[in-house]
Amino acid sequence: VPVKTIEWRDNSVRMIDQRLLPARETIRIYKDYKGVADAIRTMVIRGAPAIGVAAAMGVALGIRGYSGTRAQSRFALVAKALKSTRPTAVNLAWGVDRMGRVLEANLSLDAAHLFRVMRDEAIAICREDIEANRAMGKFGAELLSASNTILTHCNAGALATAGYGTALGVVRAAKEAGKKVAVFADETRPFLQGSRLTAWELHKDKIPVTIIADNMAATVLRSGRIDCVIVGTDRTAANGDVANKIGTYPLAVMARRHNVPFYVAAPLSSIDLNCPSGDQIPIEERSGLELTEFRGKQVAPKGIATFNPAFDVTPNDLVTAIITERGVAYPPYTESLKALKDSARPPK
Amino acid sequence: VPVKTIEWRDNSVRMIDQRLLPARETIRIYKDYKGVADAIRTMVIRGAPAIGVAAAMGVALGIRGYSGTRAQSRFALVAKALKSTRPTAVNLAWGVDRMGRVLEANLSLDAAHLFRVMRDEAIAICREDIEANRAMGKFGAELLSASNTILTHCNAGALATAGYGTALGVVRAAKEAGKKVAVFADETRPFLQGSRLTAWELHKDKIPVTIIADNMAATVLRSGRIDCVIVGTDRTAANGDVANKIGTYPLAVMARRHNVPFYVAAPLSSIDLNCPSGDQIPIEERSGLELTEFRGKQVAPKGIATFNPAFDVTPNDLVTAIITERGVAYPPYTESLKALKDSARPPK
Repeated sequence: VPVKTIEWRDNSVRMIDQRLLPARETIRIYKDYKGVADAIRTMVIRGAPAIGVAAAMGVALGIRGYSGTRAQSRFALVAKALKSTRPTAVNLAWGVDRMGRVLEANLSLDAAHLFRVMRDEAIAICREDIEANRAMGKFGAELLSASNTILTHCNAGALATAGYGTALGVVRAAKEAGKKVAVFADETRPFLQGSRLTAWELHKDKIPVTIIADNMAATVLRSGRIDCVIVGTDRTAANGDVANKIGTYPLAVMARRHNVPFYVAAPLSSIDLNCPSGDQIPIEERSGLELTEFRGKQVAPKGIATFNPAFDVTPNDLVTAIITERGVAYPPYTESLKALKDSARPPK
Repeated sequence: VPVKTIEWRDNSVRMIDQRLLPARETIRIYKDYKGVADAIRTMVIRGAPAIGVAAAMGVALGIRGYSGTRAQSRFALVAKALKSTRPTAVNLAWGVDRMGRVLEANLSLDAAHLFRVMRDEAIAICREDIEANRAMGKFGAELLSASNTILTHCNAGALATAGYGTALGVVRAAKEAGKKVAVFADETRPFLQGSRLTAWELHKDKIPVTIIADNMAATVLRSGRIDCVIVGTDRTAANGDVANKIGTYPLAVMARRHNVPFYVAAPLSSIDLNCPSGDQIPIEERSGLELTEFRGKQVAPKGIATFNPAFDVTPNDLVTAIITERGVAYPPYTESLKALKDSARPPK
């Protein structure tokens, strides 16, 4: 049974609450854009492609009942609220801006018709995300041999996307192609996307998965047991610098040290050609409570200082290849990523 | 108020239960060696020097009431039980073996006298550990400049020793010498020695401390904010390979990548000249429950596979210097460590 990360139903947006997994499978239902914005900010839903879809659906909810110039100013307000929830993933802005272009092309419609067009566009973004992941999975699976142990970080799976996953999409596609796959999953502090989410969805799919703490990845890489590392990305710059969940950068360094290929599964929506290099990617800092508390229980001394960056940037020279839904990009990325983006049909 | 990690009082061994810190300060009292062995195994007490002291005190409790050849066979049993609790830290065997030599030298005493001699030896080991840490601190502090931000991993502090600490002893000595110090502490999964213990004892001593997740250390090192890394060790081989808490090895790799000195604070009791290199150091694997549960609450899916090595080995070429209570060792360590060990007076 595939996981439904996010779904449009009965003019509302449904999400599985990822903060409670795997202990509880709770569905949240949002009827307005503010609820969706809160869900993104508080990580009910997370993962760059998934929050891109959520933001698009949030826009559709937000402009409901508006048309013409009133819809335009309403969109400006809704877009700002949604884009401000999390700064690093470029998919968020990508999803919102695509909805904005559809709005501009349909300003002559009455409110009811405009809402239907916007709703259908959000649903299309959701469907296309899954299709992109399946295409990416096929390209990625070709990089793998007949039997593979893959190390991954965070959750770049069905739960991070509309479905199927990016990095875990490659794992799934390899399995579907008859290859043998097993996964080591970094638990990924502080939110534990690895031990809670990656482990949960792979376990459901009967793909063997072994949990380690983030600081154990170096030992596993040194042991020679890992054939490749595959991770997702929240934003990849034009030069191939990769922003992804905190801990990806040291993982890439250790992979290089132990001669293990380091692959990034990146839908074209996460590649930002307007961003020349990783230095220009804004890195979100989240609340220190993620480090000092665990499910409301105090772990560290009260009043202690914290630093909690949610992402880091892996320099392009540590990235063996970038897997997209249009093919695999190799260095120099400034050329290969641009060529892949150019080859993609413009969004309708 | 200094932390009392372990104390001999009224013919029993008292320890602060480190599993409950910082939420609760609970003292455990052990009257027999089996209790002490359990305390080491379950990490009521941890840290290589601290468990060396605990094991010595455990031997004293264990041989109480015995003398002559009965004391010898009793010692064999007690020593085996204590040594088998945790395999990586060499201090455990060091403490037990030192007690064994005292036993052999006092076989003519009656049981009451023998117990007093053994008890006094265990108390001496405890006192000497603090003295060694203070000496180590002074040597280490000389390596630091007037103002320092130090990154550390796990807890090599007062709680890991009889008192004062090894890596944190260097921090304390630098402060006592009038230098400015601030600390970044890796939280250190899965047991959270950094956010629970290092943060707690430095906060008590009013030394500024900032908690980060282990996977954030690379970002902090890249930022240029860190002047040096200082860690402890559970066993350092004759060639300077350093076994320490899991995550130390990737930390050393990242420190080298960003040109940050990487220091190891190692009492001579933790340097094992009988172990030629890190390959020969046994690495403890602990229960996967440390990864799948948090204070008894399920975090990961039930039945998931885990890999939980408690230590890793940092190769000697990544170690800038090793700080001992007899001075600072530089490469080549095979020579410098042997010279320092030879210079130490043999245990009485």
